[in-house]
Amino acid sequence: MRMTQLFTRTLKQAPAGEVARNAQLLIRAGYVHKTMAGVYSFLPLGLRVLENIKQIVREEMDKVDSQELTMSTLQRKELWQETGRWSDEVVDVWFKSKLQDGTDVGFGWTHEEPIVDLLRNYLKSYKDLPISVYQFQNKLRNELRAKSGIMRGREFVMKDMYSVHASKEDLDNYYNTVIEAYKRCYDRFGIGDETYVTFASGGAFTKFSHEFQTICDAGEDYIYLHRGKNIAVNEEVLDEAVAELGVDRSELEKVKTAEVGNIFNFGTQKSEEMKLVFTDADGKEQYAYMGSYGIGITRVMGVIVEKFADEKGLVWPENIAPFKVYIVAIGDKGKELAGKLYGELADSGMDTLLDDRDERPGVKFADAELMGLPWRITIGDRAIDGDGLFEVTERATGEMKKMNYQQLLEFCLSR
Amino acid sequence: MRMTQLFTRTLKQAPAGEVARNAQLLIRAGYVHKTMAGVYSFLPLGLRVLENIKQIVREEMDKVDSQELTMSTLQRKELWQETGRWSDEVVDVWFKSKLQDGTDVGFGWTHEEPIVDLLRNYLKSYKDLPISVYQFQNKLRNELRAKSGIMRGREFVMKDMYSVHASKEDLDNYYNTVIEAYKRCYDRFGIGDETYVTFASGGAFTKFSHEFQTICDAGEDYIYLHRGKNIAVNEEVLDEAVAELGVDRSELEKVKTAEVGNIFNFGTQKSEEMKLVFTDADGKEQYAYMGSYGIGITRVMGVIVEKFADEKGLVWPENIAPFKVYIVAIGDKGKELAGKLYGELADSGMDTLLDDRDERPGVKFADAELMGLPWRITIGDRAIDGDGLFEVTERATGEMKKMNYQQLLEFCLSR
Repeated sequence: MRMTQLFTRTLKQAPAGEVARNAQLLIRAGYVHKTMAGVYSFLPLGLRVLENIKQIVREEMDKVDSQELTMSTLQRKELWQETGRWSDEVVDVWFKSKLQDGTDVGFGWTHEEPIVDLLRNYLKSYKDLPISVYQFQNKLRNELRAKSGIMRGREFVMKDMYSVHASKEDLDNYYNTVIEAYKRCYDRFGIGDETYVTFASGGAFTKFSHEFQTICDAGEDYIYLHRGKNIAVNEEVLDEAVAELGVDRSELEKVKTAEVGNIFNFGTQKSEEMKLVFTDADGKEQYAYMGSYGIGITRVMGVIVEKFADEKGLVWPENIAPFKVYIVAIGDKGKELAGKLYGELADSGMDTLLDDRDERPGVKFADAELMGLPWRITIGDRAIDGDGLFEVTERATGEMKKMNYQQLLEFCLSR
Repeated sequence: MRMTQLFTRTLKQAPAGEVARNAQLLIRAGYVHKTMAGVYSFLPLGLRVLENIKQIVREEMDKVDSQELTMSTLQRKELWQETGRWSDEVVDVWFKSKLQDGTDVGFGWTHEEPIVDLLRNYLKSYKDLPISVYQFQNKLRNELRAKSGIMRGREFVMKDMYSVHASKEDLDNYYNTVIEAYKRCYDRFGIGDETYVTFASGGAFTKFSHEFQTICDAGEDYIYLHRGKNIAVNEEVLDEAVAELGVDRSELEKVKTAEVGNIFNFGTQKSEEMKLVFTDADGKEQYAYMGSYGIGITRVMGVIVEKFADEKGLVWPENIAPFKVYIVAIGDKGKELAGKLYGELADSGMDTLLDDRDERPGVKFADAELMGLPWRITIGDRAIDGDGLFEVTERATGEMKKMNYQQLLEFCLSR
């Protein structure tokens, strides 16, 4: 994309009321627009990041044989009354409204109940199991406070997955398979080495659930980490977990983290509440076993901003950057050659961001830093008239290499 | 995808209260699930159709240099008060709720106001224009009645696009460019030859707006059509249009249609209401010219169902079908060879639907008809043991051809 076509521009300041660093930077760099506290629109650059994150998750969920669908936002009261979760005293984040005839409706903040309702239509026999489904959903939650930018919004994108099984063992196996799929996701996002599978509080069925916690100063959680044994425990279950896992509490390091995923083994709790049953091999009716698995897509984006940004601006890991390369064109000959490079890359299927504006080089360099694309290539008259070697600068490290035009082309196409 | 992995199955009956034929068929075939009147979840097959429609629209909107973004669902009251459209007396389809501190919020039913608000941040000079942006949005509308299945829902997917220009002429040109882009969309959906650019009522700025109306018995509109001159007029502006366009009223044919798109020239109306201005070449402040352009994505899907379905079930045009090919495996050798074909196609990047269930051939054929994929290939023991020629049946026409295995492979890969 050419910068002269992109309608966003970098802004000197974020709105006065925005206190979260991730949102401040994303607003200033033209990735998001703030509607109200905890509610953001995703502009072309921001949407590209979101879609890159989603696509990684989609590929990994498809690999564990989950099927993508999209549940509705509007929710029926009766369905949620089956589990007692319609009540505002039980769930304090509902947005609710009424149809014109006075019927109550809610706006989906999670989707266990509707998924179980859906599967009641399709599940008959043990032969239908296992079933795994997932979606990318715009969840709405009426959070009391929303001061963490896109890390905790009133409106946010979540990947939620639900699996149903004929036995505890099958659920346990799948649950472990999903843990591995999640690890691959965080690796591919570029935060794998600082994201820990963390013991957290369980439910009626299991002592623990598992969270995925990423070390992050802007996070809201603390975990206790045993780096040697690669064990992480949420503060809330520290005592039980220490006893259960046989680690020495003094060896645990307390670190601040942000939760980027959560998986939960419901056992037959939900199935019993909502009567999700199947016929087993002996013709007997059984309750199904169920797990749920979430990744906050917009939250992951916010955590990545917080973790990698520096004083100059955003720093995107290569896999999720909106473009991998930012081409700075300087001078008339520079513009021409930069346009040629841009066109040749586009013809090879690689979309880059070409800064073809009539701006001083300093402005372009500063914007490149703020926008945070992994690689900046500078094509200017001076290099063209000189040794024909162009600067390639890595955003994350600031390291600079020089390459001739052919090397540039090959470098870009290998990203 | 293998049918034994797909969690949906065909259902004998749609829910008792479902009166729309499109929803009845889509539910029975496992494409959608009904949450409540006018609210549907999209299951794996249905989501594939939606995504195919969206991808066609995305490609065509990108071709007219529009930039994709995603605006928020949650809306601030103050913004809509600027145009008087917060009032329930002016807009009777709002869903509204309150934040925990009592602040009113609405749920987006359209996005002109938020788009203008967004662009106020970025538009400075005539050099920034034109700007065109679009999104695929889950719109929420509190419709009094919702009896048309996915053709008119309380929750539905819409592609809405907005363009801003420095002059009336530039807006007019772009408007006409979008008309051509829309025609390409409907052509690619498979309904181009029965979709008409239709004169409809305009606004403060123009005498007419333009609707795209598709001939459809399940539609809610009537248009008056001059097939020879390719002119179509909505009932509501019949008198003005007949006078304006110089057609003889007696030559017009009244046909029932469904609106599948709508484009609107606002002139400077919205910009004046919300003060969207730019500095012209002489340094003077000017109001921007604005157009808006909608395509109801879920509605298009519903119209296509209504237009093409027959007594046996759904019939999908090839470009938007969830899979192009339905492979029916019969008998042990048939299953093995069908599995080989399925695998070879998958290796070449073509996803097909393989009916590998332990069901009688009659059940598989009936399900294939109901699910409506364009091509059914039957691979059975009889053909394998006989002349080695397999039946390829076109869903839309019922026409059957015979092909050997190599021909089958080539036929599929050329789809």
